[in-house]
Amino acid sequence: FDYDGPSMKTEVPAEELQKNVGAVHFFCNYEESRGNYLVDADGNRMLDLYTQISSIPIGYNHPALLKVLSKPHNLSTFVNRPALGILPPENFPERLMETLVSVAPRGMSRVQTMACGSCSNENAFKSMFIWYKNKERGHNQPSQEEINSCMLNQGPGCPDLSILSFMGSFHGRTMGCLATTHSKSIHKLDVPSFDWPIAPFPKLRYPLEEFVRENSQEEARCLEEVEDLIVKWRQKGKTVAGIVTEPIQSEGGDNHASPDFFKKLRNIARKHGCAFHVDEVQTGCGPTGKFWAHEHWGLDDPADIVSFSKKMLTGGYFHKDEFMPYRIFNTWMGDPSKNIFLTEVLNVIKTERLLEEVSRSGKALLQGLYELQAQYPHLLSAARGVGTFCAINARDDATRDRLILKVRNKGIILGGCGEKSIRFRPALVFKEYHVHLFLNIFNDVLAEH
Amino acid sequence: FDYDGPSMKTEVPAEELQKNVGAVHFFCNYEESRGNYLVDADGNRMLDLYTQISSIPIGYNHPALLKVLSKPHNLSTFVNRPALGILPPENFPERLMETLVSVAPRGMSRVQTMACGSCSNENAFKSMFIWYKNKERGHNQPSQEEINSCMLNQGPGCPDLSILSFMGSFHGRTMGCLATTHSKSIHKLDVPSFDWPIAPFPKLRYPLEEFVRENSQEEARCLEEVEDLIVKWRQKGKTVAGIVTEPIQSEGGDNHASPDFFKKLRNIARKHGCAFHVDEVQTGCGPTGKFWAHEHWGLDDPADIVSFSKKMLTGGYFHKDEFMPYRIFNTWMGDPSKNIFLTEVLNVIKTERLLEEVSRSGKALLQGLYELQAQYPHLLSAARGVGTFCAINARDDATRDRLILKVRNKGIILGGCGEKSIRFRPALVFKEYHVHLFLNIFNDVLAEH
Ligand code: FES
Repeated sequence: FDYDGPSMKTEVPAEELQKNVGAVHFFCNYEESRGNYLVDADGNRMLDLYTQISSIPIGYNHPALLKVLSKPHNLSTFVNRPALGILPPENFPERLMETLVSVAPRGMSRVQTMACGSCSNENAFKSMFIWYKNKERGHNQPSQEEINSCMLNQGPGCPDLSILSFMGSFHGRTMGCLATTHSKSIHKLDVPSFDWPIAPFPKLRYPLEEFVRENSQEEARCLEEVEDLIVKWRQKGKTVAGIVTEPIQSEGGDNHASPDFFKKLRNIARKHGCAFHVDEVQTGCGPTGKFWAHEHWGLDDPADIVSFSKKMLTGGYFHKDEFMPYRIFNTWMGDPSKNIFLTEVLNVIKTERLLEEVSRSGKALLQGLYELQAQYPHLLSAARGVGTFCAINARDDATRDRLILKVRNKGIILGGCGEKSIRFRPALVFKEYHVHLFLNIFNDVLAEH
Repeated sequence: FDYDGPSMKTEVPAEELQKNVGAVHFFCNYEESRGNYLVDADGNRMLDLYTQISSIPIGYNHPALLKVLSKPHNLSTFVNRPALGILPPENFPERLMETLVSVAPRGMSRVQTMACGSCSNENAFKSMFIWYKNKERGHNQPSQEEINSCMLNQGPGCPDLSILSFMGSFHGRTMGCLATTHSKSIHKLDVPSFDWPIAPFPKLRYPLEEFVRENSQEEARCLEEVEDLIVKWRQKGKTVAGIVTEPIQSEGGDNHASPDFFKKLRNIARKHGCAFHVDEVQTGCGPTGKFWAHEHWGLDDPADIVSFSKKMLTGGYFHKDEFMPYRIFNTWMGDPSKNIFLTEVLNVIKTERLLEEVSRSGKALLQGLYELQAQYPHLLSAARGVGTFCAINARDDATRDRLILKVRNKGIILGGCGEKSIRFRPALVFKEYHVHLFLNIFNDVLAEH
């Protein structure tokens, strides 16, 4: 089903396509794209290791997904988008059990669907605030003063609670999410925000196995800062209701931390009565070789809330019982047509054993990156990753950008992240021979550079 | 294609379906639903005047929409959701011209797609903040201090700017939108917010034609308050960058204001250098008999930004050139599969002359409501509306809720809004004979009450 390799006819984008269209990289022919290959408007066929910012789970035009549209009884789900919160389709609870609940993270059996990563996180934050206030009140009956003041955006109804996030994190760009996003200034500039605490995220040395002692000191420093901030913000009257973190900071530059770090962070959250929210929008749905990246931590009670989107096609979040979404609502509350596709995606992941495939390809990819950085130490460093969720640093951002353009003209699509990192975000159907195909082309480009 | 009337077999929901499922009204059989009729899981067929919170434009399972899914070249758009901002499909600019740009409000030729009403408004707000800061700076090059401070959620990079909204308004529930939403306390309670100014929205007497003098005094009072708030918030150091309003406050209780009010409001915005944002998420796409409700104002320059979603199937906002979305971005930036459906919707609206149909049905509906409130003055009052976008007040909220349940068991779906209003939000294919069908049943229920 996959094509057998890249095939380039022009530069990408060909000159006549270099219109003034903002951030557009190039125009695509999605009809001709297949598996790991994205075809552009000029018929250039490229091996895609970026997959629409990590959001194509099992490659382009997977036959299992196309089949969904050939089944007449599915069609009404596409043309009649319901207000899911009030008028769900009759089979919706069963579908949720078959799909989302079947992959629920440990300790969670409840899920709230949403439509994208931002509304998933916004509503997860709101759940944590509501949970915190109910805990504080001892019940869920607001006072008349709370009811009146909230209509005016004032306390006590709109309390001065906060969410603690990490420098380098990315949790979305709507205004609540944006107050916890700290990856690039250009995302945040000119937009009013909340005075919420921001902790340093560990800056580790890679490979992690070689720098265990230094890294664990760095992690201890950051955790200490987390506790200090919680205390400080409580004193300021802006108590921390929840802590949010990615298992691997993605937009911020593929920054990793150890299972021990997350275990201690989880304990700090518990100790201070804060909810613990793991944002798996980019890491979830298999790219690390486990379904959820936080499963690598090996904790019995890893989180209170886990949000997802991208490869999951629908957005949403899993939560513990005590975060019941009674007051979480919007018109669509997700999109059941995305759930139909997700059922097939989960099925393909299982029957084609894609998590094992990811672990295998990821090992080959990381090994290849180690070799390249040994061979080109003036260009590359800090290869790192779990599964195929890998990254490597270029010397600087100009070099990074040039390398990405050069490999693109040889038929490989890569993405950047952080200051000078290249990130690898292939689909789950990216196999070992795709890894070698990529490594050969990357090697050629590096040799020429 | 439509069914020929309601057909009820059980109470709705039948007892065995009354599970503990939060806000769920009942479960639906979308496959069997058609045109103006929603069928539930028990086979009850109901005339739908609520249409999934006003989000089904041309009825259930419209053949034109089903046909979209039978065309093989459309399928790849459904199974490969692109990151539209960077890798759009090759025909995307043309599709936008054919669909969204063809219905652009006066004075606007640019559109940014989004995925729902909330991200449409969140990003519209961000555009206004960025526009305001660029205007203030005189250029779009931020200082180093701005760049550094914004990463910490602090000024001057994250400025203390505000959006002025109206009491009773609804603009969404993500945290930026929620700071401008003031329809029900339960939406806002326990969620931190911004100290932004909230002006009174005119409380008019209906029918508007009969209370012109009182109403215009009330509107003048509110406009004066708007100017006062703009001045006060500037003095507080929280300058108003934009004003947002619905043309008819929908969730807040179908509150109308006159074209003269909006004309003066638009002038106040211009005078004080604030952007003017008209939120047409619920009013847009035809239900008032014009494509955009604000066209009823008859202004040459009605707005700087117009946001939409719901019946438009995709979200997004139109904007003037100076609000270019260079820094507006997220993973999906909309969903081209919704645009394909929208093309058909716009086509059906044109070829079936649905805006004329809406005006005709709306006139009959409002006339009927006037007669009913004259007949049952102890139960109903304040009938009002434009096109089929109508509402009427019940004596109190308990009466309202009882009436809605009673008509439902006779095969009519209605929705509430505000404190004690019933709102009518049929699809654009709701014809005059559907109006009479509804009025007869409503009359029976009122007579029995
Ligand atoms: S905010 Fe998620 S779809 Fe709009």
